[in-house]
Amino acid sequence: MKLQLAIDELNLEQAMTQLEDLVEYVDIVEVGTPFVIDAGREAVRQIKKKFPELAVLCDVKIMDAGAYEAQLAFDAGAEYVTVLGVTDDLTIKGCVDEARKQGRQIMVDMICVEDLATRVPIVESLGVDVIAVHTGADQQAAGRTPLEDLIEIKKYVKNVKVAVAGGISSQTINAYLALNPDILIVGSGILNAANPVKEARLIAKALKGGR
Amino acid sequence: MKLQLAIDELNLEQAMTQLEDLVEYVDIVEVGTPFVIDAGREAVRQIKKKFPELAVLCDVKIMDAGAYEAQLAFDAGAEYVTVLGVTDDLTIKGCVDEARKQGRQIMVDMICVEDLATRVPIVESLGVDVIAVHTGADQQAAGRTPLEDLIEIKKYVKNVKVAVAGGISSQTINAYLALNPDILIVGSGILNAANPVKEARLIAKALKGGR
Repeated sequence: MKLQLAIDELNLEQAMTQLEDLVEYVDIVEVGTPFVIDAGREAVRQIKKKFPELAVLCDVKIMDAGAYEAQLAFDAGAEYVTVLGVTDDLTIKGCVDEARKQGRQIMVDMICVEDLATRVPIVESLGVDVIAVHTGADQQAAGRTPLEDLIEIKKYVKNVKVAVAGGISSQTINAYLALNPDILIVGSGILNAANPVKEARLIAKALKGGR
Repeated sequence: MKLQLAIDELNLEQAMTQLEDLVEYVDIVEVGTPFVIDAGREAVRQIKKKFPELAVLCDVKIMDAGAYEAQLAFDAGAEYVTVLGVTDDLTIKGCVDEARKQGRQIMVDMICVEDLATRVPIVESLGVDVIAVHTGADQQAAGRTPLEDLIEIKKYVKNVKVAVAGGISSQTINAYLALNPDILIVGSGILNAANPVKEARLIAKALKGGR
């Protein structure tokens, strides 16, 4: 089980400083969507340069021009790139083809996919590496959590890895661990904690228990 | 009728040079999704600084955290920000609320929305400024054009403006003009033309005829 730290609301300088303290607890660093809007793929380059031992995920949530946009992120050093589950199969296929060329990985973000029973098997058949259950920040604010979607998705996946994002902290992690995802994505749970390092340590420890 | 030039595959330096020649024909410059991945919102800042007379659209295709991501683009100087029609209503509402605060505009990209008859009235009721018919690059490569979607969308909109993107050039523009959209979005039709300035002039002239 891997811990993915999602960085959304920091600028590049803040992110680099924050990572120095957190790097030992983290397997994958996510350059989150707002972070990409702010800093572009330069954020991937800088993080990869300073922390070559970390895998970097570039959360561009690709919706079109799959091969081209995936290539931009891979060329900057990303190990993982995200594409949206709601997009066209051709776009997901374009991302997967580019990932195979470069020996990298594609994560599909299932945010706002309504019919998981139908969509998960199609997405898996396109050759993606990870399917991510994702309850968006706006949906979380309306009281939704990803636990039910995680249970649901687990019914439909065959061999693909599963990631889960949304509302995870040391307080809520056991409910997620019980469902045995491959990647746990934590953002504000760590970065907005009173003590981010302590929170990351607690979560990493819980993950090891769950391995 | 406005002409929106979509810049997708240029870097910031190339875009600035290209714009010098094209600015007189263009109403809105789109910092396209791959361009944002490459350069971040700095591209919006630089273009707005050098060409203050142009409106800039930041094509971030927001899928979550609507208010926050829209703010990032507006703060950099964007007049328009895009959100995806396939996302949650709460996310679109977050974008609209932020746009009202800042006196800016939200364009909804309807790419991959399946049921336009149902979705267009909901999206319009959320208070967005422009609804964009968009046949993605990957879908275009598979032979689809946005003309039928434009006819379809025109049936369901009441007062909101309509934009159209996908496959527009001086060769195809008359079919689009006949459907009277408010904004015509042209990217590779101009930028990949043998003579981009000539092509932009032809398209701008056709638009004036269509005003």
